[in-house]
Order: sequence, then structure tokens, then C-alpha cells
Amino acid sequence: MGTSEWSKSEKEVARQAFTMAYDRECKSIEEELRKRVTDLQNPEGLWAIHDYLTEIRREIDKKYDYRYSVLPFIFARLLHEGWIKREDLMGLSEDKIEAITSISTLSAEE
Amino acid sequence: MGTSEWSKSEKEVARQAFTMAYDRECKSIEEELRKRVTDLQNPEGLWAIHDYLTEIRREIDKKYDYRYSVLPFIFARLLHEGWIKREDLMGLSEDKIEAITSISTLSAEE
Repeated sequence: MGTSEWSKSEKEVARQAFTMAYDRECKSIEEELRKRVTDLQNPEGLWAIHDYLTEIRREIDKKYDYRYSVLPFIFARLLHEGWIKREDLMGLSEDKIEAITSISTLSAEE
Repeated sequence: MGTSEWSKSEKEVARQAFTMAYDRECKSIEEELRKRVTDLQNPEGLWAIHDYLTEIRREIDKKYDYRYSVLPFIFARLLHEGWIKREDLMGLSEDKIEAITSISTLSAEE
């Protein structure tokens, strides 16, 4: 099966990897939020926390785009950023994994 | 001096009471934020905190409008909500204090 078609089992693997990455990234935002709230000292700091959440939420909404047409790029980015590992993609076709890891490696060399 | 004119010393009292109320209210938002962050369990909760801050910031921005033309109404509301006390307005003219506390009492009876 090529990179443009996804079997039922591939879709399950993809959904699981996607959700795992999303949960991990949200967890790290949660940790950053806890840190910022601990360090909070004045109203300016309060609104700075709101600005931080507004910005990061916009990024997360843009990044986690679950459409099969763009999923290889999403996974490549998530792999590059460390939110998923190669093992999390096991079950996808070899050519998908190959394509995803190739792009991911290219990004890493930039 | 009537309710529409503010002497230099009245402006100082007003600024101080205004800032005090703002700081107190922000402090209470900060406490609510700390509580919500402590109870945080999943990504939905994270974005619910962002929604809370977006909403409350909009309210605060609307409420804390430092223009002398509207300041008596602002102070009446702050008094009614408990962010300032009558004593915090000491130094304003008697008719201003009278007008502010009258409106504040009316609101309380609603």
C-alpha cells in the first residue's frame, strides 16, 4: 500500500500515534504552565500566561491536522520534534515509514 | 467639588483605589488559576483554563476603564463587588462618595 492510501489497520496505528503525540505535547505544555504559575508574581505575569496559552494553542491547533493527505508530514514533524518514536509508527507500510523518516532526517540536518 | 470634576488629590485617591481593586481582583484570578492548574488532568482541562483566562481577561479589560467620566460607576461596582471598601475612597468629595455608595446600595438590592 502506497503513501496515499491507508488500510484500516494503518489508520488505527496512525490514530494511536497521533493521539499519543498530542497527549505528550499537551502534558509538556501543562508542565510549563505549572512552572509559570508557580513563578507568577503580578497581574502582568497573569496575562503573560494567558498570552502563552493563546499562542501555544494556536500552534497545536495548526499542527495536529488529522487528514490522511498531510499525515506523513505531520508524523515526520512529530518524529523530528520527539513527540513520537519510529516504533510508534510500526504497522504502517514500509514505504510510509521510509518516507516519513526520510523527511524527518532532512529537517534534522537544517 | 462636584462629581464631574476631580481635584489633584482626588485623582490620587482615585488612582490608588483603582489600582488596589485591580490588584486584588487579579490576585483572586491568580488563586483560581492555581486551583484549576492543581486540578488539571487532561488536554481538555488545559484548554478550559485558557478559555477561562480569555473570558476573565475580557471582563477585566472592560471593567477597569479609568476615565473620570465613568469612574463613579466603576467605583460603585467595585464597592458592590467587594474589591474596594468605603474607606478606600476617603479623600474624594462628600458628594462623590455619597453618589458612589448610593448606586452601590441600589445594585445590592437587585
